[in-house]
Amino acid sequence: MDIGNINLATILEARGRIRKFVVKSPLKPSFELGRRTGARMFLKLENMQDTGSFKIRGAANAILKVFEEDGGSGVVAASSGNHGRAVAYVAQRLAIPSTICMTNLVPEDKIRGIEEFGSDVVLHGDDQNQAVEMALQIADERRLKYIPPFDDALIISGQGTIGLEILEQMPNIEALVVPVSGGGLMSGIATAARAIRPDIEIIGVTTRYDAAMYESIRAGRVTMVGERPSIADALPGPIPLDNRYTFGICRELVDEIVPVADEAIAHAMRFAIDHEKVVLEGGGAIGIAHVLENSARWRGRKVAVVCSGNNVSKERLDSIFGQFGLA
Amino acid sequence: MDIGNINLATILEARGRIRKFVVKSPLKPSFELGRRTGARMFLKLENMQDTGSFKIRGAANAILKVFEEDGGSGVVAASSGNHGRAVAYVAQRLAIPSTICMTNLVPEDKIRGIEEFGSDVVLHGDDQNQAVEMALQIADERRLKYIPPFDDALIISGQGTIGLEILEQMPNIEALVVPVSGGGLMSGIATAARAIRPDIEIIGVTTRYDAAMYESIRAGRVTMVGERPSIADALPGPIPLDNRYTFGICRELVDEIVPVADEAIAHAMRFAIDHEKVVLEGGGAIGIAHVLENSARWRGRKVAVVCSGNNVSKERLDSIFGQFGLA
Repeated sequence: MDIGNINLATILEARGRIRKFVVKSPLKPSFELGRRTGARMFLKLENMQDTGSFKIRGAANAILKVFEEDGGSGVVAASSGNHGRAVAYVAQRLAIPSTICMTNLVPEDKIRGIEEFGSDVVLHGDDQNQAVEMALQIADERRLKYIPPFDDALIISGQGTIGLEILEQMPNIEALVVPVSGGGLMSGIATAARAIRPDIEIIGVTTRYDAAMYESIRAGRVTMVGERPSIADALPGPIPLDNRYTFGICRELVDEIVPVADEAIAHAMRFAIDHEKVVLEGGGAIGIAHVLENSARWRGRKVAVVCSGNNVSKERLDSIFGQFGLA
Repeated sequence: MDIGNINLATILEARGRIRKFVVKSPLKPSFELGRRTGARMFLKLENMQDTGSFKIRGAANAILKVFEEDGGSGVVAASSGNHGRAVAYVAQRLAIPSTICMTNLVPEDKIRGIEEFGSDVVLHGDDQNQAVEMALQIADERRLKYIPPFDDALIISGQGTIGLEILEQMPNIEALVVPVSGGGLMSGIATAARAIRPDIEIIGVTTRYDAAMYESIRAGRVTMVGERPSIADALPGPIPLDNRYTFGICRELVDEIVPVADEAIAHAMRFAIDHEKVVLEGGGAIGIAHVLENSARWRGRKVAVVCSGNNVSKERLDSIFGQFGLA
């Protein structure tokens, strides 16, 4: 497998590079999911990374590469979420300056969550595209390196280290269930897993509405979507039409992408607290939601479910549980 | 350090033995604890072990040693909690029979939590001593190996692998904060840490009432205590008067044992969910409780806080939060 020069070699290179920034996250058996499905179910708990999500893997790979090359003039990114936190944290640990651009609509606690890592936060516009444009402009003016969120060979190779870890932790795993938004996480994991075990089953899970990769693969080309809010707030939204890597990799390597409704995601978030004793954000719990809804499909199999992150506030969690009668 | 033939060599031997049963748990920076204390605070998250607590380390070491020697005639233990779960799980993975003895007072969900690993559960008497006597009797009658909960060289050496991991993950850590009940966890960690870094500060944390090791060290000899209930239900209760290892090791190697009130433990359990996004049982959160209550003490230091386990039900968590106005 080598799409866009992303392959097992670039993923192994990433692993060496990011080692000091990344936890080999537990691949924890879920006894309760196993009981409900008749399968052997394992959770790859990326919520245990320092910044609470897998995004630190790609961000560390991209930023360390910049650092190796020019020593640290600084980095800039556009994200109020897990990618922004990851870029800010890695830059802080390397003692290089970082600027994170967000829209004016971002809530105060998300801004604080990034400022705590010493980043310069710039608020601009009221949609994500405007924040990205501002980041690119700042990169240009101040000669900083722009760190893209997903459609980038270094980012994808960094996320791919999760695939390596799963296959080391459980070499005879039969299937992977992976959240999909822009496809960076899935592209990395699928590249690693297919290279090592061509017959492995790879299933993507995404939101019911405005799931760009799902709609694009159905249409056979990168397709614009809206951005209707979901409980899994990291997942919906467009992927730019000039996509270079993730659409091609996901189309080539992923067996199926399955949409999941918000109510199932809320139940999975509740399940994670009750049975796995961890808080997962909606996008982090969506793989569990899929498995709980499709238990018969997995009977007798040995499955790894990637839980991508935990960045959800107590208030939002309570509001979600209230909405679906799960409080 | 070599008290009772427990030393760095037996801990390294344990590490090799238990590798396939144990996760190298994350030593995760707590940004919020760091902010509140002005220290660099790291959480050693033993709640991420397969059975939800550190107890799997000692249990795996003891059971695998039996297995190496006699192949697997079976094991027996007395515990409705983390030790029982650990013994049952390790025995199941090795496909050897296990019997777990508990008192008649144990709630149904704790019984199920051990039966799910295929153990034979025997209910007997209404205090822990009677359950232990039954376990010893069964061991004798059926020629099974009794796996003690803490005062045993193999158990202590297994728990000591946590100390090795912390010092590898953060070689210049300055202080360790470790929960103390019977002292198995503390004895293992202190033996490893003092052997590698004689000047490291080692602080035990325990409940305010009926903390056997705390009272024993104050009295200069093993001292009987009662068993008043605490939010940290794994911690209070007597250590047998014929203690062989843990009292001597803790007295020799631990700098101080600090009692913590239930209200502070409840706040720490809430803190763990809000800021660390994990559920911790009372005994698992008590190190965080100590640090939050004594923030000035730790200013400027680099501290590892051992979070020992997560076996608390949603219902009990809600009841604890309700009791202290934290819901």
